[in-house]
Amino acid sequence: MPIARYERVVLAHGGGGRAMHRLIDDVFVRALGGPDLDTARDGATLDLDGPLVVTTDAFTVSPLFFPGGDIGRLAVCGTVNDVAMGGGDPRHLTAAFVLEEGLPIAELERIVRSMGDAAREAGVTFITGDTKVVERGKGDGVFITTTGIGPRLSPSPIGPAAIRPGDAILVSGPVGDHGMAVLSVREGLGHETALESDVAPVASAVRALFDAGVGVRCLRDPTRGGLASALCELARSASLAFRIDERAIPIRPEVADGCELLGLDPLYVACEGRFVAVVAEDHAERAVAALDEHGCAEASVIGRATDEPPGRVTLRSVVGGERIVDMLSGEQLPRIC
Amino acid sequence: MPIARYERVVLAHGGGGRAMHRLIDDVFVRALGGPDLDTARDGATLDLDGPLVVTTDAFTVSPLFFPGGDIGRLAVCGTVNDVAMGGGDPRHLTAAFVLEEGLPIAELERIVRSMGDAAREAGVTFITGDTKVVERGKGDGVFITTTGIGPRLSPSPIGPAAIRPGDAILVSGPVGDHGMAVLSVREGLGHETALESDVAPVASAVRALFDAGVGVRCLRDPTRGGLASALCELARSASLAFRIDERAIPIRPEVADGCELLGLDPLYVACEGRFVAVVAEDHAERAVAALDEHGCAEASVIGRATDEPPGRVTLRSVVGGERIVDMLSGEQLPRIC
Repeated sequence: MPIARYERVVLAHGGGGRAMHRLIDDVFVRALGGPDLDTARDGATLDLDGPLVVTTDAFTVSPLFFPGGDIGRLAVCGTVNDVAMGGGDPRHLTAAFVLEEGLPIAELERIVRSMGDAAREAGVTFITGDTKVVERGKGDGVFITTTGIGPRLSPSPIGPAAIRPGDAILVSGPVGDHGMAVLSVREGLGHETALESDVAPVASAVRALFDAGVGVRCLRDPTRGGLASALCELARSASLAFRIDERAIPIRPEVADGCELLGLDPLYVACEGRFVAVVAEDHAERAVAALDEHGCAEASVIGRATDEPPGRVTLRSVVGGERIVDMLSGEQLPRIC
Repeated sequence: MPIARYERVVLAHGGGGRAMHRLIDDVFVRALGGPDLDTARDGATLDLDGPLVVTTDAFTVSPLFFPGGDIGRLAVCGTVNDVAMGGGDPRHLTAAFVLEEGLPIAELERIVRSMGDAAREAGVTFITGDTKVVERGKGDGVFITTTGIGPRLSPSPIGPAAIRPGDAILVSGPVGDHGMAVLSVREGLGHETALESDVAPVASAVRALFDAGVGVRCLRDPTRGGLASALCELARSASLAFRIDERAIPIRPEVADGCELLGLDPLYVACEGRFVAVVAEDHAERAVAALDEHGCAEASVIGRATDEPPGRVTLRSVVGGERIVDMLSGEQLPRIC
């Protein structure tokens, strides 16, 4: 007699017994399997030579599905992008799942298939993983933690410490799409806008910069806290001032309008497929050209690093005034990634 | 005016703004900081040469604190041990936290301090991390996912595929302590037993085996599903039979008695500081001696691998009968790790 499949996640799926092994084989290995994934072990062996870039990220986005993506695509792209932001060439991912009892198996399958698709798009393979199940009401469908690993691409370490006064600050495309797409579902704006999340791997765009010989000082993806928080973090870490021109920041009209409706500042709304690049003063045009050629048509120089005052981000607004951009004390948007 | 500290986790702690940065600096960096942790970046760069062993594990244990440990110590030891089980020398950890709104900050501090202590004990450093906050009722205090990385110690790859008929099967100490310690709190047996979890790093014991020149074929830590599930998994993966002598399996009387009281089989109760080692036939005594010298006084040879029938684990019981040991279909114990 064939054993019928469960339609929902049960606690037994996390117990280390046959039910868990069937879930792993039927759902996870089917979607994420490949030459580098050996489920007969609790880990993987990699033949990579240092220096290596390693990043980790937990994803708790709500809702699990949103226009343009889902938590699975987000978990792959977010971590792949963090490796790229560290100057690495993302190669491998690990994935750990915390499933809530009662999650429909069909939803889980959709999520892990989406992870498999995103991983192929980004050129990374899964090497190991883990699954735990918590009782109903002790989780929220599924949380995914991914760790990314890859060799360093950049000839020398990049990061805020490498930023110099005069350096140009670029953004690779319109900001705020991801956060507004998630919010449009949460706030019931869905029918009024066709906006989709920008969630996508950016590693190939970063490679395009290195291949064009651009002097990349620092990269950062403006996820939680959006572009404004990313700029504040970088300026603070670099002990430099950033002067930003608001007119140069690409923002889609749907994002601007949605933000106005909800009383939000789009500069604090998360992106999941854009990055900020700080490049050598005289490499700004070459960087924009390389990104444009790669398909980032709206990549723009948005400002410059200067000496004084350290840690301050100043925004020259559309109407000509200047304001200081600060990190938010709390947050605008919970559970955005 | 100094800003008072939050006493509990709030959603703002996950928002990417100032509250989150303060939590990271005050709580996480204080406990887990070190030369390899740079919080100004979303990732880390490692100078390790391959082959590397990489593992990942999500920890959802309930309750968060139990006799002999807590979720933090568990998250460090569990992953460090998985690297060791892969034949690796654990060096670095990443950690991702999913915090539930309302978690007392003092509890979080206790947990991350415990992680710092366990990491020092295991000789590993934290290299990067992430924190997310979910609304009250969408999590369970704290979930922790850790990824471990280290160079491979073993001269050749180890794993079930390396097991040969005749090989000796060892366990490094008494089994079931961790699961029974967690259960004693959950089931209110706390006052009747002084049993503590065995949660501890085992990497140095594994190194002792390699240093003694023991021909290690395969290592496995019997966590979820306990010793019985670990043996079933290994026999299945190796396509060999295991013959186990129940009298040789070390079990503490408190564990045996607690299991009887709760109607559990101790062979399915999780350990978090023990491992199964399959070693070359004539290296069994050398392995026991090396473990004994290392402080694993109750390390024992519990059985042998044989040809037939593939995948079957047979237990010769205390009273002389034989029974087939199977993987549980579901689980005995949810949220044990």
